[in-house]
Amino acid sequence: MNEIRITARKNPLLQQVRRLLSSRKERENAGLFVADGTKLLREAVQHWPGLDTVILSDGIDAEVPEHVRLIRVPEDVMASISPMQAPQGALFLCRLPEKTVFQPKPGMLLLDGIQDPGNLGTILRTADALEVPVALLEGCADPYNHKTVRASMGAVFRTPIVTAAWQEVRTACAEQEIPVAVTALSERARDLRQAELKKMAVVIGSEGQGVRQEILNCADAELIIPMNPNCESLNAAVAAAIVMWQMKQ
Amino acid sequence: MNEIRITARKNPLLQQVRRLLSSRKERENAGLFVADGTKLLREAVQHWPGLDTVILSDGIDAEVPEHVRLIRVPEDVMASISPMQAPQGALFLCRLPEKTVFQPKPGMLLLDGIQDPGNLGTILRTADALEVPVALLEGCADPYNHKTVRASMGAVFRTPIVTAAWQEVRTACAEQEIPVAVTALSERARDLRQAELKKMAVVIGSEGQGVRQEILNCADAELIIPMNPNCESLNAAVAAAIVMWQMKQ
Repeated sequence: MNEIRITARKNPLLQQVRRLLSSRKERENAGLFVADGTKLLREAVQHWPGLDTVILSDGIDAEVPEHVRLIRVPEDVMASISPMQAPQGALFLCRLPEKTVFQPKPGMLLLDGIQDPGNLGTILRTADALEVPVALLEGCADPYNHKTVRASMGAVFRTPIVTAAWQEVRTACAEQEIPVAVTALSERARDLRQAELKKMAVVIGSEGQGVRQEILNCADAELIIPMNPNCESLNAAVAAAIVMWQMKQ
Repeated sequence: MNEIRITARKNPLLQQVRRLLSSRKERENAGLFVADGTKLLREAVQHWPGLDTVILSDGIDAEVPEHVRLIRVPEDVMASISPMQAPQGALFLCRLPEKTVFQPKPGMLLLDGIQDPGNLGTILRTADALEVPVALLEGCADPYNHKTVRASMGAVFRTPIVTAAWQEVRTACAEQEIPVAVTALSERARDLRQAELKKMAVVIGSEGQGVRQEILNCADAELIIPMNPNCESLNAAVAAAIVMWQMKQ
């Protein structure tokens, strides 16, 4: 296999990697994103047709398909591009996927403003594991941020990510007669164990603000995870996991 | 209220704060731990009898009980001790609690080797919210690490933390006839929805290794959260949340 060797930290490709890591705009303009780690690379090789470039540190072995560009760098150069504190020596570029069209489904999760990449990645990981369809509404972190990809443990490579505008989702769910439920802490909210979650689309809101008002206003049901009154809330990834698991009851 | 003003970064108290933040041994020797943030401070004021010292940045207002030592520092000095990237201007020292004696209970969670402070804190937060008793077995992160305290959102102040050795837990559960179940990915494991979790003590293992062999060997039941075969595992805090929620079915 042809390897290209790069030793200059200011090489244009490495500069591009740094820009792709730090900016969503840059990723969208280039149509590329970056992920980091040997295990994630194995997932991408297996599941992601758009694997574009693999950068390996000296001495690191990895299976890389023939058609994929392979770059070798010294360890210190890897350290200069890797966002990990202890780089594993495998960093790679993937092409962003085509946009997947939103299709409403009963027993699906809608994410509203999940801004923390770690929480978003953990939710995508859980949804992939429990086979719950997910759509990202406005205000979510970039699913192709390297932190999201890492927290997803490769779920972003295995399951297509759907993003959609709330207005589109609302109309589509109404047409298919799928009730939209929100998780909320209001007095009206009822225990989610009393709802048939597998027939609904359930919205999880951001940790700070919860589900946005525009969605609360027209939700078909308000659901609550009953909890100790001393606690204000659950972690968003935990709340999402409980909702998804309840869909499996 | 008497305030002491400190402006020297090398002041002995500030040096101690840095040591307490970075070393569990230091915390145990001094009998103190450190937490950071205005919201956590409110939780500690309300729930933690052992609040020892509060350090506030200039211009930050906070309710601090009369008997608690109050220190004022310039913002840059706070930045030199705070582990947060954007310090909120309130950092505080708490006395470590007396050790709480382990008491076996049906419907309890046992944590084996949960090493990531963020995951441990998230589990403690969920357990507090869902009112599930928890005990930390060997190999867990320090519950009084500042990252654990932060991820717990103050749960460590509201609910006593129990640590116990596996051998002690095993004996106590046997005496009380509480079956011990482990979460595992073995062939023998059965769907946790088929078990009466609320009558059991359930062990959650570390993300990397799972539950340790010594515990697997003598568990009364092996349980699995059924998932997509492409996925290896769930995040430990998510697995714990699903187990706790299942206890509530």
